[in-house]
Amino acid sequence: MTNLDIDVIGIGNALVDVLTHEEDEFVEEQGLIKGSMTLIDAARAEDLYSKMGPATEVSGGSAANTIVGVTAMGGNGAYIGKVRDDQLGAIFAHDMRSMGLTFDVEPASSGDPTGRCMILVTPDGQRTMSTYLGASVSLAPDDIDPSLIRRGKILFLEGYLWDPPHAKAAMRAASELAVDNGQKVALTLSDSFCVERHRDSFLHLVDNSVDVLFANEAEALSLFEVDNLEAVYDRAAQSVEIAVITRSEKGSVVVAGGERVVVAAEPVAKVVDTTGAGDLYASGFLIGLARGADMATCARLGSIAAAEIISHMGPRPEADLLELVGDLLPPA
Amino acid sequence: MTNLDIDVIGIGNALVDVLTHEEDEFVEEQGLIKGSMTLIDAARAEDLYSKMGPATEVSGGSAANTIVGVTAMGGNGAYIGKVRDDQLGAIFAHDMRSMGLTFDVEPASSGDPTGRCMILVTPDGQRTMSTYLGASVSLAPDDIDPSLIRRGKILFLEGYLWDPPHAKAAMRAASELAVDNGQKVALTLSDSFCVERHRDSFLHLVDNSVDVLFANEAEALSLFEVDNLEAVYDRAAQSVEIAVITRSEKGSVVVAGGERVVVAAEPVAKVVDTTGAGDLYASGFLIGLARGADMATCARLGSIAAAEIISHMGPRPEADLLELVGDLLPPA
Repeated sequence: MTNLDIDVIGIGNALVDVLTHEEDEFVEEQGLIKGSMTLIDAARAEDLYSKMGPATEVSGGSAANTIVGVTAMGGNGAYIGKVRDDQLGAIFAHDMRSMGLTFDVEPASSGDPTGRCMILVTPDGQRTMSTYLGASVSLAPDDIDPSLIRRGKILFLEGYLWDPPHAKAAMRAASELAVDNGQKVALTLSDSFCVERHRDSFLHLVDNSVDVLFANEAEALSLFEVDNLEAVYDRAAQSVEIAVITRSEKGSVVVAGGERVVVAAEPVAKVVDTTGAGDLYASGFLIGLARGADMATCARLGSIAAAEIISHMGPRPEADLLELVGDLLPPA
Repeated sequence: MTNLDIDVIGIGNALVDVLTHEEDEFVEEQGLIKGSMTLIDAARAEDLYSKMGPATEVSGGSAANTIVGVTAMGGNGAYIGKVRDDQLGAIFAHDMRSMGLTFDVEPASSGDPTGRCMILVTPDGQRTMSTYLGASVSLAPDDIDPSLIRRGKILFLEGYLWDPPHAKAAMRAASELAVDNGQKVALTLSDSFCVERHRDSFLHLVDNSVDVLFANEAEALSLFEVDNLEAVYDRAAQSVEIAVITRSEKGSVVVAGGERVVVAAEPVAKVVDTTGAGDLYASGFLIGLARGADMATCARLGSIAAAEIISHMGPRPEADLLELVGDLLPPA
């Protein structure tokens, strides 16, 4: 076994976010479900973009955001995801590497352009996402470097990656490697519609390979096909070592070792944009876990990181997360 | 003479801004002069970008920002500037057209990529810019549509455009058309180093074609080669119908019709990023002028728009400018 010198290795859809402020009416007119993620093709992406207002571009991608957050809190992170060799791909790669994290996947030299996620932020701070996966679908098992996977304390998988078939195979290959090596595997369910699309294979993965499961209420209810949170907690306790249920402003609940830990959300002066809230919660939780913190501390670290991200536009930290978490995070 | 249905037509370098937070030490290490704009080539752009932290991309370009501001305040705007047919060019064009303004210049189909301005925002909110002009230098007299120019109440020229030679020729062609048509010509000096590079031709333009001159203190002192503001006001009064000297937190001074109007800066809770402050000041002033407002009102409109822009990252308005200016702006 090699040295576990990387805290968290994330695998996900590599996307650039295109963020704009829109009214609720626009979200409805576009036939979108507020708060959700819809997959769209190139033609629909073109059409939606032409109707959207002026935007800001920020690197995104759920697991990528999480790994950036881990790195921002002083952790050692690595990321696996696919962009193309175009301008948006160069922006994505720059924004990852300039954090000091490992991102070595070769960009695709042909095929679809770098994927993007068009995000409509409504006045209440809620985000509604339309994702054109683009080059991210071409992530394949060949892009998984076993020697990299073996270096991670935690392998973190993004549920959204279940949509593109090659990427799903890549994610499975990586998780099998991690399980064989006795490393921890974490999964975030990403979106309740994503759970509905892939419930059986998610359940199989959760029951057999996943040690740490992140889900919000809707995703967890959908995964286990139950109608109340008590049933979620019971079912999750049977499936995974650690289940983390995030509940937005109601905080989060960690089910682990036969116990339940309830942690309040961190107060936020004004919710500007919820994009990346779950991703950054996972950052805080996972860096805490990698450093051996207890469950309550892991959840608190997650809440602090999530609170920072929802206080401004975009899914990448603007404040100094390391300063925000202070002494709460055990030293490396 | 055709109908003057466009309030302001802007000509400038079409750029996408790449904004990042950096400490003062980084600005120094990179040999940059804080608060200024430095022209850089492709190799230096690559080098600087590789050293910069994670960034946010927002459409920029000085005159483009001004025209967006004019449009955001309910004005009718048009923009002339050159991008390439690449991803950043598509972003720039989208962000202009989605404002409802006219932007019809064909993107270049060969040559350098869309230009970009790398902006280091220091903790004091000051911005230091390094500009790779890219495709914007290929703006040429052919890109000036005389029938468009004839529709504008005010033609607004960006001093930065004096750097690329073809663009300078395009700007001259446009200003000659406007002068012949009896339309107002406005010029912003952009940057004191830009003024030093082109002092003689700027002076010639100011003395012969410009009706409205925008300059900050440093630019005005440099243009007229004087050492105090009194001398600037006297000299400006001889050259142009309206001279607007912007003085950051000290407000602005308008010299027009033998009078001087001093207007305070609009208070700002926290200066986050000064990028676009001068550009948006010009937006407010010019839409006021196009609507027949008096000088004090024009300057107040400028101050309000500038205050909005420096309260957040990036040079494009995030709040509703029309709401912010309220009844101060005369109706169309």
